[in-house]
Amino acid sequence: MVEVSSPEGKKMLFVMTTGPEDPEKTYAPLYTAALSAAMEVDTSMYFLMHAPKLLKKGAAEQVKLKKGGTLKQFIDMAMQNGVKFYVCEESLVDLCEIRPEELVGGVKVVGSSTLTDLALDADSVVSF
Amino acid sequence: MVEVSSPEGKKMLFVMTTGPEDPEKTYAPLYTAALSAAMEVDTSMYFLMHAPKLLKKGAAEQVKLKKGGTLKQFIDMAMQNGVKFYVCEESLVDLCEIRPEELVGGVKVVGSSTLTDLALDADSVVSF
Amino acid sequence: MVEVSSPEGKKMLFVMTTGPEDPEKTYAPLYTAALSAAMEVDTSMYFLMHAPKLLKKGAAEQVKLKKGGTLKQFIDMAMQNGVKFYVCEESLVDLCEIRPEELVGGVKVVGSSTLTDLALDADSVVSF
Repeated sequence: MVEVSSPEGKKMLFVMTTGPEDPEKTYAPLYTAALSAAMEVDTSMYFLMHAPKLLKKGAAEQVKLKKGGTLKQFIDMAMQNGVKFYVCEESLVDLCEIRPEELVGGVKVVGSSTLTDLALDADSVVSF
Repeated sequence: MVEVSSPEGKKMLFVMTTGPEDPEKTYAPLYTAALSAAMEVDTSMYFLMHAPKLLKKGAAEQVKLKKGGTLKQFIDMAMQNGVKFYVCEESLVDLCEIRPEELVGGVKVVGSSTLTDLALDADSVVSF
Repeated sequence: MVEVSSPEGKKMLFVMTTGPEDPEKTYAPLYTAALSAAMEVDTSMYFLMHAPKLLKKGAAEQVKLKKGGTLKQFIDMAMQNGVKFYVCEESLVDLCEIRPEELVGGVKVVGSSTLTDLALDADSVVSF
């Protein structure tokens, strides 16, 4: 096993850039974030580039996974475990062409500079 | 909002692996780095894999963005804001087949081990 | 040059998500990790998504590189330099459909939560 001082109370940020164009790359970040939150790590995810498309109402249900099921269950698990969801406003509007009101509940739309704030505030950042 | 202790004086590293093969994934890292530098964060970018192609003279002008304009304006903004540009020599020469003298001004060509130096020296690293 | 306090004794984690579907994106992470270990940095790599396919016996020899040679030499170099290899069990079994016994020697199969443990334990994380 990996020896590590207790992760409780630490802060993790997962950065997500992949959207529904590559379904098999979408669930691992959400699953890892859900586990991180379950370990009592203060866990955030920041969605930019194509990733905000995954948070449009009804979209995750359409992302079918080879292992069975859809992405929806992983988003639900992450949210239930307390992962905080941040969505990049510029990516959302300019690239994904989605309006904030089209997103699922429980996500916060923020500006690009928030990524730097979150990254500097976290103990560790993993990007996907 | 995200509560964060003042980011001023901290160091951010953005690692860039995407090149002109995926134009819509090229500008967010540059824009985020430009904002980071504007927040008085000491900001560096490290270009490897296909990303050094973006820094060949005349190349960024050819990367047309769906939102209008080209990548050139984002590179200019990042440079004007003081972002430091590092280019991986191995990627540049072996993979991109570009000679250092073909690059735009203001970038520094460095070896692969510099990525580890920069990453360990930064307060946070975000990879794209 | 980059001024940095001595990297010796620090810990780096490289996260690897790319597999044989994009050969030119496979060797830079291994090479960078090998150099990092050579600098006496305690270096780990975590393979998830499609990346575990690179560690199936005989697979790296099939990943031909534009610059000549195959990925095998980079895996060997990283291992010889002391890089620790971790493979995500969920990606391995569910996505890559590879059994642990089909992997090359010297790698450790671990659960998804280990990624968070490794990331929080490292001084810096770079994802590819």
